[in-house]
Amino acid sequence: MKLYIGNKNYSSWSMRPWLVLQHFGIPFDEKLIPFDEFKADQPFKMKMTQISPTGKVPTLVDEDFVIWDSLAICEYLAEQNPAKPLWPLGIQQRTEARAICAEMHSSFQTLRTLCGMNIEADLQEVGQSLWNEHPQLQADVKRIQQIWADRPHANSFLSGDHFTIADAFYAPVVMRFVTYGLPVSDNAKQYMNTILAVPAVKKWIDAAKKEHLFLASQERYRTAPADASTL
Amino acid sequence: MKLYIGNKNYSSWSMRPWLVLQHFGIPFDEKLIPFDEFKADQPFKMKMTQISPTGKVPTLVDEDFVIWDSLAICEYLAEQNPAKPLWPLGIQQRTEARAICAEMHSSFQTLRTLCGMNIEADLQEVGQSLWNEHPQLQADVKRIQQIWADRPHANSFLSGDHFTIADAFYAPVVMRFVTYGLPVSDNAKQYMNTILAVPAVKKWIDAAKKEHLFLASQERYRTAPADASTL
Ligand SMILES: N[C@@H](CCC(=O)N[C@@H](CS)C(=O)NCC(=O)O)C(=O)O
Ligand SMILES: N[C@@H](CCC(=O)N[C@@H](CS)C(=O)NCC(=O)O)C(=O)O
Repeated sequence: MKLYIGNKNYSSWSMRPWLVLQHFGIPFDEKLIPFDEFKADQPFKMKMTQISPTGKVPTLVDEDFVIWDSLAICEYLAEQNPAKPLWPLGIQQRTEARAICAEMHSSFQTLRTLCGMNIEADLQEVGQSLWNEHPQLQADVKRIQQIWADRPHANSFLSGDHFTIADAFYAPVVMRFVTYGLPVSDNAKQYMNTILAVPAVKKWIDAAKKEHLFLASQERYRTAPADASTL
Repeated sequence: MKLYIGNKNYSSWSMRPWLVLQHFGIPFDEKLIPFDEFKADQPFKMKMTQISPTGKVPTLVDEDFVIWDSLAICEYLAEQNPAKPLWPLGIQQRTEARAICAEMHSSFQTLRTLCGMNIEADLQEVGQSLWNEHPQLQADVKRIQQIWADRPHANSFLSGDHFTIADAFYAPVVMRFVTYGLPVSDNAKQYMNTILAVPAVKKWIDAAKKEHLFLASQERYRTAPADASTL
């Protein structure tokens, strides 16, 4: 099984199925296709349109079966690994986990647009201004904190004592909250710490920080650090 | 089981799980909460925020269990009705069906914004101008036609000989293509006709046309027909 992903520093959608594969110990090969400006004649699109019908990452290829969406990839992995609790075991917990994953898929447009994932960056000042200027950003963050606050108890994951697909879907949000220093409740901070302590999450973050590649197309706020590779 | 929906003429998200319930003969009560401008002190939000954490439709309430997202509702219905083929039976077909549903959830922003569902309206001239002015609309329609063209054969549904959740997810797109007269291939027209002939789809359309309620907040292009109720 091969998972095509983007840069670990930037690619929030790629992070989700990667965390699931990694956390649950499902063997896979990883193939990182570096981001560019996603123009048709640039390497990213030239490669990814050969592999996936949308030309995007993540894409999972299992033998010659291709899955081009992060949620569908996770559902497939759950079905293929019935002995592993990728989803919570109870039907209601599982349904709620799916609802918050689907909500991530269809919502939080403002957070996603204004606060692109950028793990190595420290954009707390930018985050403060964005917060003050954009009520819709505040609304997105409020709803996300509500979702997190609905977890069974303060030290748990979203659906209980174990990390599931739902946590993988919200891990990139944790990264955004950190990078942009968005003001959140103590309860939300506690959930963020729980996620940041998951070994698979740590592994992704470490790799992201080592990339040290500055992609102008992904950077609305930073100028290139002197020692970074640029593109 | 009770499904909260919006106006059948306008509410594309509501249409999806409603079609699934109706087509598969799963007993349910329907509760239509009329759209308004979705302000916090107007009836829609005052009602829906009591029922669902997002204050949106569709919301399915099964005894006292609440599901607030259309995809999660469909997954729940599939799990609760294992004898009915809500998803295709093969793992690959099922995964592909999930991928196109998730893609619907996360994509086609331009189509959704510019061409809101409006079943009773005839907006073909508007559609022609939108088409000429918005390359991204053309790109959305192109990708949707690709998805449809990947179905097993010209007369089939998206995943085979039977209507599934995937078709329910694309039925509102069929309605938009009709209303705005978007130029599509013969192959796409054939799929559209297949969908328009499904009894559950017909039933929704008939009810939508009988509503005859003109909601200014949902109308970017029309002025109120003389004989319509307005809000
Ligand atoms: N809904 C898709 C989204 C995938 C997506 O948007 N991926 C981005 C990178 S994080 C991408 O490949 N962008 C390239 C492009 O937009 O052309 C999923 O869940 O997999
Ligand atoms: N992703 C949600 C979307 C639900 C949604 O946006 N529903 C619209 C009506 S079609 C709504 O309730 N809007 C009210 C609002 O935005 O406040 C789903 O799949 O159920």
